[in-house]
Amino acid sequence: MLIDCDIHIGYETLADLLPYLDGPTRELVVSSGTNGLAMPSYPWNHPSGWIRQDVYERGGSAGDFPYLSLELLREKHLDAYDISVGIVEPDEGAAFAILPNSQLAARLCSAYNDWLLERWLQEEPRLRGMIVVPAQWPEAAAREIRRVGGRDEFAGIFLPGAARIPYGNPVYDPIWEAANELGLPVAVHTHFESVGIAPPLTAAGMPDYYAEYHTLCGAGMYGHLVSILCHGIFERFPETRVAMVEGGLVPFVGFLWRLDTNWKSCRNEMPWCRRRPSDYVWDHVRFATQPLESPDDPQQLVAAIEFLRPSETLMYASDFPHWDFDEPEQTLRQLPAEWRDGVRWRNAQRFFRLPVPAAA
Amino acid sequence: MLIDCDIHIGYETLADLLPYLDGPTRELVVSSGTNGLAMPSYPWNHPSGWIRQDVYERGGSAGDFPYLSLELLREKHLDAYDISVGIVEPDEGAAFAILPNSQLAARLCSAYNDWLLERWLQEEPRLRGMIVVPAQWPEAAAREIRRVGGRDEFAGIFLPGAARIPYGNPVYDPIWEAANELGLPVAVHTHFESVGIAPPLTAAGMPDYYAEYHTLCGAGMYGHLVSILCHGIFERFPETRVAMVEGGLVPFVGFLWRLDTNWKSCRNEMPWCRRRPSDYVWDHVRFATQPLESPDDPQQLVAAIEFLRPSETLMYASDFPHWDFDEPEQTLRQLPAEWRDGVRWRNAQRFFRLPVPAAA
Repeated sequence: MLIDCDIHIGYETLADLLPYLDGPTRELVVSSGTNGLAMPSYPWNHPSGWIRQDVYERGGSAGDFPYLSLELLREKHLDAYDISVGIVEPDEGAAFAILPNSQLAARLCSAYNDWLLERWLQEEPRLRGMIVVPAQWPEAAAREIRRVGGRDEFAGIFLPGAARIPYGNPVYDPIWEAANELGLPVAVHTHFESVGIAPPLTAAGMPDYYAEYHTLCGAGMYGHLVSILCHGIFERFPETRVAMVEGGLVPFVGFLWRLDTNWKSCRNEMPWCRRRPSDYVWDHVRFATQPLESPDDPQQLVAAIEFLRPSETLMYASDFPHWDFDEPEQTLRQLPAEWRDGVRWRNAQRFFRLPVPAAA
Repeated sequence: MLIDCDIHIGYETLADLLPYLDGPTRELVVSSGTNGLAMPSYPWNHPSGWIRQDVYERGGSAGDFPYLSLELLREKHLDAYDISVGIVEPDEGAAFAILPNSQLAARLCSAYNDWLLERWLQEEPRLRGMIVVPAQWPEAAAREIRRVGGRDEFAGIFLPGAARIPYGNPVYDPIWEAANELGLPVAVHTHFESVGIAPPLTAAGMPDYYAEYHTLCGAGMYGHLVSILCHGIFERFPETRVAMVEGGLVPFVGFLWRLDTNWKSCRNEMPWCRRRPSDYVWDHVRFATQPLESPDDPQQLVAAIEFLRPSETLMYASDFPHWDFDEPEQTLRQLPAEWRDGVRWRNAQRFFRLPVPAAA
């Protein structure tokens, strides 16, 4: 059994969502801007293209997202690697949560979730979707979670790394409440940092190059995890499960060590944190592998992340079809044999509460 | 021999700088704001106080910085730990570089450097100063470096982690040029992230608690180091030496591994980076120890940072007199015996080009 926690599916253009939108929003998508609603995007471009060039045709109009068909996803990925379950994260849809217009964001999120359900999740039972929500409007996000979150086709809730306010802050309580009510986990995934309502990538401002961005793109996620821990989300919403997806692994080790130390010195700031911060991580937080840090000596990686208890907390992720896709066996063979079963499927199966097939 | 790379000295109030200021700036310091020029400060307070409570008297007026006397610095630190050389970093003076008014910043920096020289560096030969510069105005910063940087009392140039633009960006070329001309190293030190002209601490916005800030306060420094590497500063200004002070150690390991990988994929973005990014680090970059990450098992730290070649790149720092001060032996005994000589003095002596006393 193999579970992939990070497969990206995108619409070809926003027009794909038109059948799922109300009249006024449909009008905005068609008529606003120059050639219809234009979504904010990164100021950096990947120098050789965002998407693996063997899974889409280049040469569409410049504003369009590369198109990945379900057939190609099956052929190049699900069948090719014998993937039992693939967790679907958004591509451009992740940017709904960093639009300044939260009313528009809420409508686009609902349309996206309906499109995803009808066009992908109901067509391919190996796929499970992450619900896209207007995180900038937590009450509406909670409504959307309750609207579709009871369906088996959805496995959890997607929140992008980019945000105006870190996710532990009390403004987000409605989201944690709805997630707890439905028993759904949340994936915080690097996406659209420095774009829309989100502040620049680093406390030193905006970098110039894509390579800088991609090296530091976990910057929002580190802020979210530390915020979630310091605000006592795991005390107040004890069913909460959070995955950190595509933010690397090693920096989390350093930040957790620092936070454990700071918690001892700053307990009067956050008396609701009764346990040491890293203790909550073992029960509530999981980490996706991709992009696995790749030192020349893989043993250095193993030693550096040992503190994260990887045999229980790591989950395999491919990031298919993005340029830096990690093959399953390429990832697993860099990890000790005794971690591999957990990373391959067991940790994700528990985290997403997926059925265990007879084969496993 | 013991070299301490991070001792903080601050003026009691900005009025201490009045004798070193020109007339109009003196008037601004005395007359602007409500009770004279007020410097921007952190939105978070350390819950039990920024400064070790045994080295200053509480109870001054609220806006004043805690006062540390040269006598107390000698008694509690230089003599107590037999420190041969102490590198002086600013306290509030670090904020000149994040003032919106760069003309004012330049004048305050010059006054601060003159005050530091006269009141501390010329009084105590064990101290060496870091030159404070208006980083937001690189031409003026370069002039200040050339004005005082030839004096033996100064050991290098101070740049705060907080900035509008990461330090590799071409706008800073005048600073790197002046540093190279004078053979002076640069210390990038966490300071005033989220304050003044600097953007919020994380790509997820501003955290609520001091403990969050202090866990992630290296966020600007990571941006600066990656920027310096990607912009080829070490190719274009080959005498450049950079110390990363107070940003932790473990996150740098993860970011360098990611950057080495990204460099392979993105070389057309930065063809001037002829060597792999981490290769430049061994020749040009050093890391200060404090605050040393403190897992329960110190061996986990040693394993996590091995990639940084610590016996050659780590330099002891105390952060005296701040609340999270690290004692020299407390730091050194957590590190392998074969690293200790390098960390205790040898790496800093080479980095700052200090004379080797006969005793060493």
